[in-house]
Amino acid sequence: GSSCVCQPGYRMVSSNGGSSIICQKCPENVSGVTQDGWNCITCPKGLTSEGKCKCLNNEILVERSIDGILLSEALCIRCNGSEQSFSASDASGNRCVRCEQTFINVSKSCDCSSPNILVMHNFPFFPTPKGVATVRFGQLGITLTSAWFLKNLQSSASACWLYSNLTACQALGNMCVMNMNSLSSSSTDACGLFQYIYVNTARLGIVHSIAFWRHNLPWLYYGDQPGLASQVLEANHFPTMFTFKGTEKDVKLQFIAASFDAAGNFLKWQNLEGGILQLCPDTQTKLNAAYAFGTTYQQSCKISVSKILLDFTEPIFYDLFLEYKGDNGQQYLWDVPVLNLNLQYSEMFVNQGSNMNNWLLTRRFLLVDALSGKENDLGKLPRVIRIASKITISIRLVSHTQKGTIYPPLLTIAYTDVLLQNPESQSVMVSFSVNYEMNQSEAQIQTDITLGVLGGLAVLWSLLKTAGWKRRTGSSIIDLQTILKFLVFYAGDLANVFFVITAGTGIYWLFFFKAQQFVSVLLPLPSQEANFVTYIACAFSLKALQFLQLLVSQLTIDIFFIDWERPKGKVLKAVEGEGVIKSGAAPVSIWRTYFIANEWNEIQTVRKINPLFQVLAVLFFLEVVGFSNLALMDSSSSLTRSSESYIAPWSRILRFGVSAALWLAIAFLQVIFFSVFYERFVEDKISQFVDLCCMSNISVFLLSHSCFGYYIHGRSVHGHADTNMEEMNMNLKREAENLCSQRGLLPNTDGQTFQISISRKMRLHYDRIHETLTRKRGPARLLDSSANTFEQSTRAYNTMNKFLSSFIDHVHKEMDYIVKDKLLLERILSMEFMEPIEKSIFYNDEGHSFSDVLYYGNETTLLIFDILFFSIVDLASQSFVLAAILTYLQQEIFRFIRNTLGQKNLASKTLVDERFLI
Amino acid sequence: GSSCVCQPGYRMVSSNGGSSIICQKCPENVSGVTQDGWNCITCPKGLTSEGKCKCLNNEILVERSIDGILLSEALCIRCNGSEQSFSASDASGNRCVRCEQTFINVSKSCDCSSPNILVMHNFPFFPTPKGVATVRFGQLGITLTSAWFLKNLQSSASACWLYSNLTACQALGNMCVMNMNSLSSSSTDACGLFQYIYVNTARLGIVHSIAFWRHNLPWLYYGDQPGLASQVLEANHFPTMFTFKGTEKDVKLQFIAASFDAAGNFLKWQNLEGGILQLCPDTQTKLNAAYAFGTTYQQSCKISVSKILLDFTEPIFYDLFLEYKGDNGQQYLWDVPVLNLNLQYSEMFVNQGSNMNNWLLTRRFLLVDALSGKENDLGKLPRVIRIASKITISIRLVSHTQKGTIYPPLLTIAYTDVLLQNPESQSVMVSFSVNYEMNQSEAQIQTDITLGVLGGLAVLWSLLKTAGWKRRTGSSIIDLQTILKFLVFYAGDLANVFFVITAGTGIYWLFFFKAQQFVSVLLPLPSQEANFVTYIACAFSLKALQFLQLLVSQLTIDIFFIDWERPKGKVLKAVEGEGVIKSGAAPVSIWRTYFIANEWNEIQTVRKINPLFQVLAVLFFLEVVGFSNLALMDSSSSLTRSSESYIAPWSRILRFGVSAALWLAIAFLQVIFFSVFYERFVEDKISQFVDLCCMSNISVFLLSHSCFGYYIHGRSVHGHADTNMEEMNMNLKREAENLCSQRGLLPNTDGQTFQISISRKMRLHYDRIHETLTRKRGPARLLDSSANTFEQSTRAYNTMNKFLSSFIDHVHKEMDYIVKDKLLLERILSMEFMEPIEKSIFYNDEGHSFSDVLYYGNETTLLIFDILFFSIVDLASQSFVLAAILTYLQQEIFRFIRNTLGQKNLASKTLVDERFLI
Repeated sequence: GSSCVCQPGYRMVSSNGGSSIICQKCPENVSGVTQDGWNCITCPKGLTSEGKCKCLNNEILVERSIDGILLSEALCIRCNGSEQSFSASDASGNRCVRCEQTFINVSKSCDCSSPNILVMHNFPFFPTPKGVATVRFGQLGITLTSAWFLKNLQSSASACWLYSNLTACQALGNMCVMNMNSLSSSSTDACGLFQYIYVNTARLGIVHSIAFWRHNLPWLYYGDQPGLASQVLEANHFPTMFTFKGTEKDVKLQFIAASFDAAGNFLKWQNLEGGILQLCPDTQTKLNAAYAFGTTYQQSCKISVSKILLDFTEPIFYDLFLEYKGDNGQQYLWDVPVLNLNLQYSEMFVNQGSNMNNWLLTRRFLLVDALSGKENDLGKLPRVIRIASKITISIRLVSHTQKGTIYPPLLTIAYTDVLLQNPESQSVMVSFSVNYEMNQSEAQIQTDITLGVLGGLAVLWSLLKTAGWKRRTGSSIIDLQTILKFLVFYAGDLANVFFVITAGTGIYWLFFFKAQQFVSVLLPLPSQEANFVTYIACAFSLKALQFLQLLVSQLTIDIFFIDWERPKGKVLKAVEGEGVIKSGAAPVSIWRTYFIANEWNEIQTVRKINPLFQVLAVLFFLEVVGFSNLALMDSSSSLTRSSESYIAPWSRILRFGVSAALWLAIAFLQVIFFSVFYERFVEDKISQFVDLCCMSNISVFLLSHSCFGYYIHGRSVHGHADTNMEEMNMNLKREAENLCSQRGLLPNTDGQTFQISISRKMRLHYDRIHETLTRKRGPARLLDSSANTFEQSTRAYNTMNKFLSSFIDHVHKEMDYIVKDKLLLERILSMEFMEPIEKSIFYNDEGHSFSDVLYYGNETTLLIFDILFFSIVDLASQSFVLAAILTYLQQEIFRFIRNTLGQKNLASKTLVDERFLI
Repeated sequence: GSSCVCQPGYRMVSSNGGSSIICQKCPENVSGVTQDGWNCITCPKGLTSEGKCKCLNNEILVERSIDGILLSEALCIRCNGSEQSFSASDASGNRCVRCEQTFINVSKSCDCSSPNILVMHNFPFFPTPKGVATVRFGQLGITLTSAWFLKNLQSSASACWLYSNLTACQALGNMCVMNMNSLSSSSTDACGLFQYIYVNTARLGIVHSIAFWRHNLPWLYYGDQPGLASQVLEANHFPTMFTFKGTEKDVKLQFIAASFDAAGNFLKWQNLEGGILQLCPDTQTKLNAAYAFGTTYQQSCKISVSKILLDFTEPIFYDLFLEYKGDNGQQYLWDVPVLNLNLQYSEMFVNQGSNMNNWLLTRRFLLVDALSGKENDLGKLPRVIRIASKITISIRLVSHTQKGTIYPPLLTIAYTDVLLQNPESQSVMVSFSVNYEMNQSEAQIQTDITLGVLGGLAVLWSLLKTAGWKRRTGSSIIDLQTILKFLVFYAGDLANVFFVITAGTGIYWLFFFKAQQFVSVLLPLPSQEANFVTYIACAFSLKALQFLQLLVSQLTIDIFFIDWERPKGKVLKAVEGEGVIKSGAAPVSIWRTYFIANEWNEIQTVRKINPLFQVLAVLFFLEVVGFSNLALMDSSSSLTRSSESYIAPWSRILRFGVSAALWLAIAFLQVIFFSVFYERFVEDKISQFVDLCCMSNISVFLLSHSCFGYYIHGRSVHGHADTNMEEMNMNLKREAENLCSQRGLLPNTDGQTFQISISRKMRLHYDRIHETLTRKRGPARLLDSSANTFEQSTRAYNTMNKFLSSFIDHVHKEMDYIVKDKLLLERILSMEFMEPIEKSIFYNDEGHSFSDVLYYGNETTLLIFDILFFSIVDLASQSFVLAAILTYLQQEIFRFIRNTLGQKNLASKTLVDERFLI
C-alpha cells in the first residue's frame, strides 16, 4: 500500500517516487505495457492480466535490443538448446541462460522430451506416481497425496540412483524423514526407495568410517534391522569427562546440528544454543540453560498453529552431533541417535516400547513439517502439519564412573499431526526436555538391603521392648493387648527405620550430587522417586501412630503428690457460739500441693528445644537464606539464583534431603544450646520442679505402667515447709550454706529421682484405694451422693497420702522396697531384668527419666514426627512456607490437646481441683 | 562450504550437484570463463579476479545472443540512453534496463554528466559535501564523516527539494533522525536541510489536517520552536476510555508503528506487540504484557554489541501511533510524541530538563543506528553505533477522570553511543519500561492536611495525658521530667497518627486502584513513594519509643500482695530438748502468696491475641493464599499469577497496604475469637487470676504511678484459705451453691477490682516502709549484715502487710478512702478529675483495667508496633517471609526481657524469693 501502479493498459508518465504518479492509456494498436511500466509496446502473443506481454512457456520475452533500444514490437524467442549453447528460458522468462546440468547430462540438450521417459525405465521399479507420493499421518488416520512428493520423489530418486546427485539424495532422504523413516513391506515409498538405493550402492563406499553412512547418501538409519539400538547406545562411552564445577567446555553439552532444506541443500552448521530445537519462546539465557551439563531442563507451552505456520514455512532437517575434543586438541563430532516414536517398522510402532532391542534408531529429524501435508498446490496452506511436539534429550551416566563419563546421548522425538481447520484458534502443546539418568537399580538394591536388615533389627528391638513392657505391666500372659503393643512398638521402630533410610538417602543425594566435581552420580528421575515418597509416607503414618500412642499413654498415667507435712501441733480454736476453746490438729495447708500440681501441669508440654523457633529457623534458612535452591535439579551448589536464570525443576528427594538436614542440624544446635547454656544458666524447668518438690515437702509418685513408674523424693530436709516467709527464707538460707542434711531418699545421698518397679501386691493396694475414687462415677443412688463424693474423695486422698508415705517410710513390711543401681545393660535396653516379686525396687536415676511421661523426655519422637509432617506437607504442596505454617498449627493443636487432657487426668488422679491448674 | 567451485581460469566439466565437480583449464587465448562457469570465452576488456569477463561501469557484458547462443567472444555494450529508450546498465551489469526516473526528469537522458552540476546550483546553499556529512556522537565527543551521509545527504536533499521525491524526503528525514533531530544554528546538516525544505514548501499543503505534517515530507517535529510540548501533551485527551476489567480492546494499548528503512522506503505497519521495541529477549506473553493497560512494565538487560550488530544491520525508523475507535466504529490513529533526550537545540540538551516548556517533541525514532557511524565504506563495521538504551512510555491519567481518560502517551528515549572496539566483549545496558502516572499533588496536599490536623489533635491529646499523668504522680510542678513525659506521650500519639495515615493511604490505594473498573486513579511512581516510606519510618521509630517507655514503666511498678490470713489460733508445740509444751501463734503459710506471685509472673506477657498465630496467619495469607500478588503494579486483582505471565514490579504502598489490612483483619478476628469464645468457654487468664486472689485470701496492691494504681480485692469470703483440701473443697462448693456472701470490697457488691488514687500522705507512708527494704542495698557496714537483711526484709514484709490490710480495713482515719464510680468523661480520658487530698479514692473498675500494667492491657500498642516492625523489615528486604521471622524473633526477645526483668521487679517488690517464680 505504499506506492501507486497504473491500471492494465496504461503506462506511467511521471512519478515522484511514491505517492503520486500520472498514467496514460496506451493506443489501441500498441496495447501492451513494457515490464518497467513506462512504455507501450505491441505484444505478439497476447497480454497477461496485468496488461503486459505474454510468451509461451519455453520462450523468452524481448522488449529491448541488447544495447537497450526499445523495440516497437516485443519478440517471443525460443532459446537455443543445442549442444554448444544449452540455453533455456530462465525462471522469469526474460533471458536465455544455461539450462540444468541434469538435462544436459541426460539428453545432451535442454529438452526434457521423450527420451527421458525411456531413461526412467532403468530405475528398478516404476510405481505409479500416485502410489509413492502418498504421505500417511498415522495419528489422524489420513493418507494424503502430497504435492511435494508428487513433484520431487520420482525425480530425486532417479537422480540419486542414476547419478548419485547428492542434493537429490538428500532430498530423497528428507522425504523419507517426512514419512517418519517408516519402513513398510511395500517399499515403494520414499524410505523404500532410499533403502533400495542404500542397499544397491554399497560399492560407493562409506564416509568417516561409519558403516551406515554411504558416500552418496545422507545418513538416516543405524542399520535397518532392529536390535542394534543397545549396541549404539551402550557399547561406547562418549569421550568427554563432564564436571559440575569447571571450565566452560566440560560443563556444556556442545550440540552441533547440520541443517538442510527440503530440497536437499545444505544450509549450515549451527550450535543448538539460542533455542534451535525449543519451540517455546523464552529468554536466551533460559533457553541455553538446557545445555548446561547436569541441569534437568523442562519447557512446555501451547503454541498457536498460525504462529507455527508463520515461523516454519519451510521444513528444516537436522543431523545432530555432539562435539568433543580429541587428544590432540582437535574438535570431533559424535553422532547423536534419534528415537522417533512415530516410526513404523512393518506397521508396528517399534520405538514406543521400552524394550531397547526392538528400537530402530535413526539420524535425521525435523521440527515442523508443513510441506508434505500440502495437497495439489505447494503455494496453498497444507491440510495437515506435523510438529515435533515432545523432544527429549537423555543423558545417561555410565555406572561406577568417577569421571563424569556418559553414554552417547539419545534424542527422543514424538510428533503430533494436526489437521488444519482454523489455524488461528488451533493450538498444540509442545515440550522440550533434557533428562539425566543413571542406572539406579544398584541404589535400589542397597536401599532394599538396608531396609531388610534394619527392619529385622526393628522386629528384635520391638520384641525386646514388648518384653520390657510385659515386665513393667506385671503380667506374663501373651494376650491381644500384648500383640497390639508389639505392633505399636514395631510401628515406631519401623518409622525410625524408614526415617533413617529416607533422610540418609536424601542427604546422600544432596551431598554426593551437589558437591561432586567430576560427575559420578545423577539424581533419580521423578518417576524413580515413587519408592522414596512411599517410604516417607510410611514413615509418617507409622510415626503418627507411635505419636498418638505416646499421647494416649501420657494422658492416662497415674500420679499422686505425697504430702509429708504433718500438723505442727494442736491448735486452740474458739468454737463460735459456745465460748469454749477446743483443741484440734492444725490443718496442713493444701496450697503447696496446688503449687506443685500447677507446676507439673505447666511442664507437661515443655520440650528440649523450642519447636517454634525450630520451624521458623528452618523456614528462614530455606526461603530467606536460600537453601531451598539446593533442591533444584541442576549442577549449581550456590544458594542464590538470579531472576533471569533458568530455574530447574525441584527434586523431591533433594527437597526432603535439604529440609531434613536443616531440621536435624538446627535441632542439634538447639539441644546443645539448651543443655549446655540455657538450662545451666537461665532456667531448667525439670530441675526446678524437683527442687520445688523438696522445698514444698511433697513427693511425686508416678505410675506409667501397672508396675512401673517414677518417684521424685521431695521430703523437706527442714521437716516443715508449710510455714511463713520468715521460716522459708531461713530454710533456703540454711540450705545454701550447707547446714542441713542432704535431700536424698537414702541418708547422705542426693538421689531424689527414681525409677520404681513395684510389686503386684503394692499395685493391688494402690488400686484398692484408688477404686474408692472411681466408684463415685457409678450409677446415681437414691440418696444424694454429691456430699458423699466430696467426703469420699477427701478420704481417699488422705488414705492414699498416708499409704504412700508409709510405704516410702518402710512401714509396710510386706510391701517393702530396696534401692539399687540399674545395670548398664538395663539402662541401655531401658528394661528391668529383676522382677519385683517380694519387694519393690527403686532404681537410682540421676537423669530425671520421669520426664518420659512428659513431652520433655520424648524429644526424638516429637522431632521426627515434626520433620515428617513438614516433609509430607512439602511433598504434597511444594511449598515450604505452607509446610512451616501447618507444622506450627499441628504442634499447637497437639499441645493444646496434651495440655487440656493432661490437666483433666492430673485433676482426677491427684484430686486437685482443676480450677487451681492454671 | 557446502559446494565446490572451480579456480579462476578453469571451467566446470561435470558436477553431481554438490560435493564433486570436475574442472578443466581454459585455453590460453580463450581465458575467460562465462558467468555460469561452464564455458570458456574471450573477454574484450580483461578479466575480474574470479576469472570472469569485465566491462566498463556503464557497459553491459553480453555472453549469449538474445536466443541463447553462446558467443565465442563476449561483448561489452553501452546501453542506449537516448530519449526513446532511456536505458542503462542494471546493477549487475548484465542487461540494459530503463534508467532512474530522476535522471530522465532532469536531463531527459540517462546520463548524469555536466548539466547536473548546473542544476544543483538552484539549491539555496551548496555547502561542501564534507561539511554536512558529519555525524556528531555527543556522548563520546566524536564527530565522524559518515559514508552514508556523504553518499546520500546531498542527493536526497536535492531530490526532495527539487522534485518533492517522497522517498528522498523520507531518506533526508531519516538522516535528520540519525542526527538526533538536533537543530543547530549552522543549519547545513541533515536537520538544517530538512527544516529549510519544510519552511519553504509550506505551499504544498499538509496531510491529515496536522499542521506539522507536510504533504511532501515525513513528520519529524511538533513545531520547531520550544514551548509547544505542554500543549501537545496536555491540551487534548486521548479518546479511548480505559478499564481494568473489560473487553480486549479497552484494556490494551494498541500501539501501531509505521516503519521505514534508511533509504526512505516504507516497510510496513506493525503492532508493537511481539517485542518490536523491546531489545531484551523474553517470552511472547511477557513481552506483550507491556501493553496491557495498568501494568507497570520494566525490563532491562545487558546485550552484547555483537548481537546487536547481527540483529540490526539496517536501521529501521518508526513513526509511532496509538489506535482508537471513532464514534462510527472506524479505526483511527493518534500520533505519539517522542521526547528524545539526546536532542540538541542550539547546542543545549533541552529535553533533559524537567521543564516541559523547554521540551522539543519529535516524531520519528530508531532503535539501533549502525549505519551513520560507518566511515568511508558502507560494507565495513561502523566505528560508532547508537542504541536506544532507555525507552520509556509514559501514560498519564487525566486528573478527576472517572472514565479512564488519559493524555496522549509520551515516548521518552535516551540513546547511548558505543565506540566499537571489540564487539564480542562489549555490551550495553538497555531497558524498556511503561509507566503510569497521574498528578499526585492533590493526594499529597490531602495527606499533608490530615497530618496537620491529626498532629494538632495529637498535641492536645498528649497535653491531656500529661495533665492526667501529673495528677497521678501527685506533683504539680512542670519540670524536665514532665516535658520528657509529654514528649513520650506525643511520640506515641504521633506514631498513631502516622500509622493511621499510612495504613489509610495503603488500604485506600489497594482498594481504589485494584478494584476500579473504569480507571480513575493510578499508583504513585516509585519516586513518589519516598514520602510514604518516611512516614512509616517515623511511625515505627516513634512507636518503638513509646513501646520502650511502656516496657520501662511496666518493669518498675510497685506491687504488693496483701495476705488477709490470720493465724488460726495458738499452736501447742513441744520444744525440743526441754520437754515443755509452748504455745505460739500458728504460722500462716506463705505458699498462697507464692502461688499468687507465680501466677502474676505468668500473666505478665499474656496478650489479647496469639501474636505468633497472628504472624503466621498473615504469612499464610500473603505467601500461600497469594495476597501478596495484590501488591503488584498491574491491573489484575487476582490472587494467583501463572508462572508464564509477566510479573510487574512491587508497589511499596500496596505491599504495606495489603499487609497492614491483613494484620488488622486477622487481629480483629482474633480479638473477636478470644473475647467472645475463648475467654468465655476455655480460659480467661485475667479473670482466673482475680478468682484465684479471692480463693487464696490475698489482695493485690499495685501502684503504677506515685499516687495511682490498682487494687484487686482478694479477701476470702470464707475467712480462711490456708487450710487442707477438705475445707478448700467445701469452700468451693459453698460458693458454687451461693451460700456465702459476695466477694466485693463493699458489702453486697461484686466489685473486686479498683483503680485507686491515693493521697500523698498514704504514699509517703508506703514509701517509708519500703525504704527499710531498699536501705539494705546501702554500703556494707562493719557488722555482717546478711542476717540483718533477712530479718529486715521479713519485718518490712510484715509491716507492709499489716499497714496495707489495715488501710483497706479503714483503720487509719487520717488515711481513709472512699469508693466511687468514675465519671464517663474520666473513663474516656482515662484521667481523674478529683485530687485525692484528704482521702484516697477507689474507683470501681469492672474492666480489669489493672491489666494496663501487663501486656494484656496494651494490645493496641503492641499490635501496631508489630505491624510497623513487620512492614519496616518488608520494605527493606521485600520479603514477607523474612519479615515474619524477624517479627517473631522481636516478639520473643521483648517477651523474654519483659518476663525476666518483670520477674526481678516482682521479686524485689513483693519479697517473694525469685526461685518460686517459675
